[in-house]
Amino acid sequence: MALIGILGGMGPLATVDFFERVIQLTSAAGATCDQEHLPLLVANLPHIPDRSKAMLKSGADPLPALLAGIDMLNRNEVDLIAIPCNSAHYWYDAMRARSRAPILHIAEACVAAIARGTRRAAVLATGGTLAAGLYQKILERHDIEPLVPSGPTQQHIDACIDAVKAGDLDASAAELAAALAEFAARGAEAAVMGCTEIPLAARRIATPPMMLIDSTLELARVTVSYGMTRGWNMRS
Amino acid sequence: MALIGILGGMGPLATVDFFERVIQLTSAAGATCDQEHLPLLVANLPHIPDRSKAMLKSGADPLPALLAGIDMLNRNEVDLIAIPCNSAHYWYDAMRARSRAPILHIAEACVAAIARGTRRAAVLATGGTLAAGLYQKILERHDIEPLVPSGPTQQHIDACIDAVKAGDLDASAAELAAALAEFAARGAEAAVMGCTEIPLAARRIATPPMMLIDSTLELARVTVSYGMTRGWNMRS
Repeated sequence: MALIGILGGMGPLATVDFFERVIQLTSAAGATCDQEHLPLLVANLPHIPDRSKAMLKSGADPLPALLAGIDMLNRNEVDLIAIPCNSAHYWYDAMRARSRAPILHIAEACVAAIARGTRRAAVLATGGTLAAGLYQKILERHDIEPLVPSGPTQQHIDACIDAVKAGDLDASAAELAAALAEFAARGAEAAVMGCTEIPLAARRIATPPMMLIDSTLELARVTVSYGMTRGWNMRS
Repeated sequence: MALIGILGGMGPLATVDFFERVIQLTSAAGATCDQEHLPLLVANLPHIPDRSKAMLKSGADPLPALLAGIDMLNRNEVDLIAIPCNSAHYWYDAMRARSRAPILHIAEACVAAIARGTRRAAVLATGGTLAAGLYQKILERHDIEPLVPSGPTQQHIDACIDAVKAGDLDASAAELAAALAEFAARGAEAAVMGCTEIPLAARRIATPPMMLIDSTLELARVTVSYGMTRGWNMRS
């Protein structure tokens, strides 16, 4: 039996969101009963040290805990790994080098979903992900100009993420709307939500001023497509 | 590090629901950041043969696949196991005998949440769970008269469960409302939702005619309480 490993818990609600989207996308692709869904092993490991703080050199190194999670999934003989946390992808190369199973890349999946013809895309992410240039590099490779937040805009984004982690979705949506208004004024035609907490806030905004690309959803799409193409949803 | 194992995929959306409730209850109990949540290993194994069909002697035996899931969780050294599927508890004794880690019992958790003074409680469950008497036995032990569905009522309940598994929550709520109306006419003061799909339909009913006890939520409460009491949400 094939098995898809999920390295999660960063944060736990984002992992639930990713898990739910995988199930919904599998149903949308035709699964009509339990037995037509994809086998998943979800390692929800919330104790992994804060990724954003570490990227800003102000916190413990999460790499040993990330590699322990990768090892756990490989010990269970998973055939593919998805990691629903953007910041964790700062350590992508080290995890990929350690893993027998291939690891999908959340930012590659997200940028691939931006509409053709887009010239300028805002990057909504943690300070750490922004400082590491995770999305900027991939956007530039696709000839899209990355717009990074000003200091005051980043304060709204950080407040949005913190509110989601604390379970206050109304507050999170207000902070996100403020950040989007500033990016709209700067000519952004799309915004990549490069943090798995942000899409939970975005669902409370009925009409965003630009196209929002949800990294969690796009990673889920690639995960389901990978598994369904190989028939992993059917008992072998 | 302590780890809570979840044997899931029966069905997958019910497992997502349970997972989300565990996270929400942990937040409600005071977790304010990722690192204060409970480590979980969720084995979402949807290929386990249909439990209800097997209980009605019309399908493959799911016990080997259930025990393989229990073995997988124990190989990962989980400290506790929760199984968000009522029907699977027909094989509870065999799973408990096989497992090193203790296994919570969903029906015990659910019945313990019925209000004091309740004399008659409806049992909403699959035909298999009803035929096995899983809830009736526990209710009688608590001096509560179990009301089981008539044939036409059970058709509504089965249609409700199938609609949830197919992702059609509006249809599922209409079927559940019809079943509840019939139980209300028979004097039910409470109804145990002894199938993890039914609570997903119940959320679409604003004012149910009696108190509904959600087996998924009650299992999540016991799971979080077990882990938090032992400090498993804090890195040791």
